[in-house]
Amino acid sequence: MTVLDARWDTGVFLLDNVARLDDEGVHILDRRNYPFTKEWVTCPDVPSVARAIIDMVTQSGGTATAAAYGMVLAADTAARHPEPASELDRLAQLIRDTRPTNDSVKTVVETALQICEERELADWSEALGQYVRTRETDRLALAWQMAKHGSQLLPDGVRLLTHCWAETGLTQMVLAATKAERSVTVYCDETRPYLQGSRLTADAMRDAGATVVVVPDAAAGYLISEGQVDLVVTGSDRVTADGSVVNKAGTLSLALLSRAHDVPFYSLCPRVDRNTPTAAEVPIEMRNGDEVLHCLELRTATDGVEGYYPAFDRTPAELITGLITPNGVLAPDEI
Amino acid sequence: MTVLDARWDTGVFLLDNVARLDDEGVHILDRRNYPFTKEWVTCPDVPSVARAIIDMVTQSGGTATAAAYGMVLAADTAARHPEPASELDRLAQLIRDTRPTNDSVKTVVETALQICEERELADWSEALGQYVRTRETDRLALAWQMAKHGSQLLPDGVRLLTHCWAETGLTQMVLAATKAERSVTVYCDETRPYLQGSRLTADAMRDAGATVVVVPDAAAGYLISEGQVDLVVTGSDRVTADGSVVNKAGTLSLALLSRAHDVPFYSLCPRVDRNTPTAAEVPIEMRNGDEVLHCLELRTATDGVEGYYPAFDRTPAELITGLITPNGVLAPDEI
Repeated sequence: MTVLDARWDTGVFLLDNVARLDDEGVHILDRRNYPFTKEWVTCPDVPSVARAIIDMVTQSGGTATAAAYGMVLAADTAARHPEPASELDRLAQLIRDTRPTNDSVKTVVETALQICEERELADWSEALGQYVRTRETDRLALAWQMAKHGSQLLPDGVRLLTHCWAETGLTQMVLAATKAERSVTVYCDETRPYLQGSRLTADAMRDAGATVVVVPDAAAGYLISEGQVDLVVTGSDRVTADGSVVNKAGTLSLALLSRAHDVPFYSLCPRVDRNTPTAAEVPIEMRNGDEVLHCLELRTATDGVEGYYPAFDRTPAELITGLITPNGVLAPDEI
Repeated sequence: MTVLDARWDTGVFLLDNVARLDDEGVHILDRRNYPFTKEWVTCPDVPSVARAIIDMVTQSGGTATAAAYGMVLAADTAARHPEPASELDRLAQLIRDTRPTNDSVKTVVETALQICEERELADWSEALGQYVRTRETDRLALAWQMAKHGSQLLPDGVRLLTHCWAETGLTQMVLAATKAERSVTVYCDETRPYLQGSRLTADAMRDAGATVVVVPDAAAGYLISEGQVDLVVTGSDRVTADGSVVNKAGTLSLALLSRAHDVPFYSLCPRVDRNTPTAAEVPIEMRNGDEVLHCLELRTATDGVEGYYPAFDRTPAELITGLITPNGVLAPDEI
């Protein structure tokens, strides 16, 4: 196994360092209790990588990065197996089936399998190592490209509202504005049940130099209707061929509120899934309902009730002002 | 001081028993940690009643009931003061200024002052005691009237979504349906930061015989857009003369989501504030932002950030299918 991640310790924010690989296995930054603890979960084998992704040790775009490191581990493991090709397929399947809505895990796994198929067994490890290094560099480069375009939407004094965790793209976008001496206020929806907004986004936005204001998810209606928000920017777990966005549950109502009050609504869009015509065809992950009945492991609900947590929703293209892509801010029908 | 609340122990749900009065003072059911603890906060004097209301010991319509008992205490206190009338005014002011958005506290205080003004000092206590007893009976009667009409909106198998705590009206409405052997599923928005949905509403709905499903506030978009909700029913902190509803933050986005997906949206409306023409004139209470940075006293947000909690929002009449009033389910322009 090769030590990877050339970007490690080069000064990007800790939350951008999703995972790393060494002789002990894949280490994934544990976002579940971040920033209260800053710990890494070590996954010595492929099933534990898959379990970590399912258990939300990392989330959003972080799942694909963890999956990529997991595929290097899978190739190393399979190479020592009597039937390497079928073992690689078996291990790949474990990773591919972890999270259904964001298709980047599937893309990573299929790309890795393709690379191995085209090479001799002895070259798998080296080839996959090269792939994940390149992928990681590309991921950050795409984020910086989006940030360059997106930061043009942030004049001095701007008030941006965001939901959940919109990845390195949003962090760099805000950082580009604050480095240019522009004041930026970011309203962070707390994003129950995992509190990605209160914990991850608020933390990254503060480090990026913004004034950070955490709000209840249900307060966006007040903020937008009262003219306290200049634009809404979310991430995207999937952008389909028609320019629709599948993203964290809550995104649809932000887009509707924005439209009703003439506030522009944008999603960061590192890639488009051209194989899926509309958002209707994207599976929505149903997570364990118990997650809604607790907050950071503390029970929050009365007993004798169920929880239900559909983790994503579908925002139609007609509600989206623009997609912030590596090639510029484009209307949904221009992508 | 007189022992009041004739309805005590007559079999209504515990959450309907907002407050009681005895020689120790006003006892208010503490909804802040209910149902994990079922405790009463004892307020021996008027300032502590006002403080309890500000601190959300009770909330929603409960504030007016607590205020009514507080006014009996104020009259008893003022009657022993060298200048009873001005002391009564001073104490009344403490209660009146507790929560600005829901006008029922103000109405209660002004009614109580009017009653005292029309009577001799010696009759204050008796007259106010009679007023709060009558008011409490009327409050439950109004809830039952609304429930009678509202339950007609609940056919067998209905799936209702609600937000925050819509008071005895919703509990009785669902109870009327389940007593008629109709199956009712209630999706309860958890309603951060106070979790009124997860704790109070979920608890009452379960006791009323519904199947209770707690959902994150941000999941309503998924549920409504995917056809999983037959109607939305909220409470109302204020209904203005034009039929607009001021209610817990999050109500506006539910109304917009409902309209966009042809789902009927109702608010329970025990009374109309005819002195306020539109929702724009209703003050929106800004609560302490720290409430958003915590959940049941546990810190949920990273450090170095602010919280912001506008507690209510304004839903315009044109988004409201009907107001469930004691006189029937009426269109906003019919009230």
